[in-house]
Amino acid sequence: METINRNRPFVAELPSTLVEELSLLLGERFTQSPGVCAHHGHDESHFPDHPPQAVAFVEHREEIAALLRACSAHRVPVIPFGAGSSLEGHVLAVHGGIALDCTRMDRILEIDVEDMLAVVQPGVTRKRLNAALHGTGLFFPIDPGADASLGGMTATRASGTNAVRYGTMRENVLALEVVLADGRVLRTGTRAKKSSAGYDLTRLFVGSEGTLGVFTEITVRLHPLPEELAAAVVPFPSLEEAVQTVIETIQAGVPVGRVEFVDEVCVRALNGYSKTNLVEAPTLFFEFQGSKRSIEEQVETVAAIAREHGGEHFAWAIKPEERNRLWEARHNALYAALSLRPGSKAISTDTCVPISRLAEAVTRSRAAIDASGFIAGIAGHVGDGNFHVVILLDPTNPEEIAGAEALNAQIVTIAQSLGGTCTGEHGIGMGKREFLRREAGEVAIDVMRAIKHALDPFGILNPGKVLP
Amino acid sequence: METINRNRPFVAELPSTLVEELSLLLGERFTQSPGVCAHHGHDESHFPDHPPQAVAFVEHREEIAALLRACSAHRVPVIPFGAGSSLEGHVLAVHGGIALDCTRMDRILEIDVEDMLAVVQPGVTRKRLNAALHGTGLFFPIDPGADASLGGMTATRASGTNAVRYGTMRENVLALEVVLADGRVLRTGTRAKKSSAGYDLTRLFVGSEGTLGVFTEITVRLHPLPEELAAAVVPFPSLEEAVQTVIETIQAGVPVGRVEFVDEVCVRALNGYSKTNLVEAPTLFFEFQGSKRSIEEQVETVAAIAREHGGEHFAWAIKPEERNRLWEARHNALYAALSLRPGSKAISTDTCVPISRLAEAVTRSRAAIDASGFIAGIAGHVGDGNFHVVILLDPTNPEEIAGAEALNAQIVTIAQSLGGTCTGEHGIGMGKREFLRREAGEVAIDVMRAIKHALDPFGILNPGKVLP
Repeated sequence: METINRNRPFVAELPSTLVEELSLLLGERFTQSPGVCAHHGHDESHFPDHPPQAVAFVEHREEIAALLRACSAHRVPVIPFGAGSSLEGHVLAVHGGIALDCTRMDRILEIDVEDMLAVVQPGVTRKRLNAALHGTGLFFPIDPGADASLGGMTATRASGTNAVRYGTMRENVLALEVVLADGRVLRTGTRAKKSSAGYDLTRLFVGSEGTLGVFTEITVRLHPLPEELAAAVVPFPSLEEAVQTVIETIQAGVPVGRVEFVDEVCVRALNGYSKTNLVEAPTLFFEFQGSKRSIEEQVETVAAIAREHGGEHFAWAIKPEERNRLWEARHNALYAALSLRPGSKAISTDTCVPISRLAEAVTRSRAAIDASGFIAGIAGHVGDGNFHVVILLDPTNPEEIAGAEALNAQIVTIAQSLGGTCTGEHGIGMGKREFLRREAGEVAIDVMRAIKHALDPFGILNPGKVLP
Repeated sequence: METINRNRPFVAELPSTLVEELSLLLGERFTQSPGVCAHHGHDESHFPDHPPQAVAFVEHREEIAALLRACSAHRVPVIPFGAGSSLEGHVLAVHGGIALDCTRMDRILEIDVEDMLAVVQPGVTRKRLNAALHGTGLFFPIDPGADASLGGMTATRASGTNAVRYGTMRENVLALEVVLADGRVLRTGTRAKKSSAGYDLTRLFVGSEGTLGVFTEITVRLHPLPEELAAAVVPFPSLEEAVQTVIETIQAGVPVGRVEFVDEVCVRALNGYSKTNLVEAPTLFFEFQGSKRSIEEQVETVAAIAREHGGEHFAWAIKPEERNRLWEARHNALYAALSLRPGSKAISTDTCVPISRLAEAVTRSRAAIDASGFIAGIAGHVGDGNFHVVILLDPTNPEEIAGAEALNAQIVTIAQSLGGTCTGEHGIGMGKREFLRREAGEVAIDVMRAIKHALDPFGILNPGKVLP
């Protein structure tokens, strides 16, 4: 075994030859300006800033390849950077190095309506893609809340409110073009909907968090816009009753578009932030999709299940503006929560459990929160068994950070003990590497390391993330 | 670089110390009996027999681990063996070695109705799993035609007629327990429906064709049984019209349960073999699933689309026995085709193309067949763009084999030129390795090789398959 340095290069200063080389390559698009570096030193996580020593605003695949070849030669870390909306410190330059800013690679290369797919560069955000799809009858459903870049969403295997019906990035990325650490360009997948041709490299890169390669083209699946939509909000007497309603809905095979849980703390925050008048109780947000008849049928089934669990008061929103207002409120949950304690930052937990254990996971997590004394709302994509506890903390108070991290660890332990995972959609990033070890086991970590080493022998790609 | 032998061990005779060691380990369950070896030397492909030098009937994970450790030490190939229903020579011992017969590992370890999953050993076949699910309201949808083992289906990323609605093994395997080449036991995935925790090792092993590890436990997703089912058969004036009907059905977002195409040659074979009276024309088989209302709606939409394309005569089968008879006929397509030419074997092509190119792919494939002079029917899972040309040949005639292989290559070239893949569900096995190289490119092959080498440095696991 070589030393730890091979896998975790650390640079305090960039070699001057590398700086010259990259300045020649990128001109003013390679910068060591402290302001620009500072801007690339943080994301939406609570981790302290770690600015890179330089930022490269790349515009072409060939530039990325040349940059990676140069950084491989100099053993300098490269950290892919998209919208900066990571909640797990993915973009922090914890080992120094260069932020590879992909936001200028923002072209939508192709929209193929017949085959229901789009080919985009990594800097395209999901909202821009959906705006471009206007009028085609198609949409791209994956929606992590933030207007994240497709590159970042692919890297973290993102999902969100629509995943219960449309799957996650895992199911919705068809093919990738990736620049490897040594500058070679890899293409994975085809345009065919399914394939048994060799190892599933596409899925290996989806969720690799910038540690195995840099995406330059992403082919995503699109879906027909639902004929009709209807949204409903239903308060429940207890979180168990709300969660049980979700479990039975899923088990009945109802193809709900979305089903989201927010607890009373969260509802209070939403009411304050989005000026809604929701009952402050454990609440489910539903979206139903399909033809008029199909929606009627879904609603009948779900209303009957909800009624059995004390969920009587369906507040309906049929018109687009009402629906949007409702879902906008749900989408702003993180920001709404932050407004409960001005100046605070949040740690958002991200556990996901088998649906039969969801009520237990949420109840035990709530008990842990209450014992901790933190203010924290619970909101989640409960149709998938995934929920977030948004723990508010003062980012200047080390004691609070430690306390919040301990609470997060407790909540992860609860999920893992119930057969679940430490992260449903945010990724491992910096803070969950030890949780990953516990969840996956030493053999899995060894296999991941062996793959990492095979593809990035000098460990220059986003070091300090994913692997413990 | 070391020599080619490292990656492709070849043994003419097993080392006597290994034979002793494995006899001690397995007793009579380790055998060199020529009859048993011969039985493990072929599958349902047209490739010539390649019997192993021994067969190990394993019953426990620990036996597999011990066997793999011993075979690693001796550099002796190990070929996992399930139902033997591969169409691509996956189980042939082309480099000699030991067939690892997993059929005795056939326990259904758990059926979890609430979480809609089952944990099985690799030797459980899909029919046995579904029989065990009787009365639970759930089923396991993946159906490759043959009563394959779940281990083999996981290894080839199998799918079949239900994939258009339920996905393939890729979407339906939640977690795996795998013994690696060096005997270590790897666990991948959790019971949570989604996860962003590290590299997607589950998906790496699904479709690895026995070359990366041996499955010992497979956790699969189950689905609620549809409330109602209805089946219909519709003949069309031309294959273009039939295929266009499928394209528009998919684009309209109709959640069809299954939609299968069979051409007139295939219909003739089905009529002869299954005593059906279908019109000998390009034909679609539909299955609709859901509530009564939802099925009515689906049928209305599809009937309107079909009518525009000259598909007027919907023959309905509502009662279970009629439906089963109909689908049984479709399922027997391969055997029906073989009956067209007694004594023949078949090469089944397996291309899959983006759906917009499906009509072109099928038409050009039909032209290639007609020019070749072979008898060959076309049947396919057209909702996914996947179709099979079943080329009948005399397995004792080398000229015919060469001709059929050339025709297969032509059909693959057509699919790849249209953005498709050489295999939608059968896998690469022995015969498609050069097609994989052309499809995936040298960099992808290098990456696959690097992963293979990282996990199986001595190349003992199913050598001569997948990688060119």
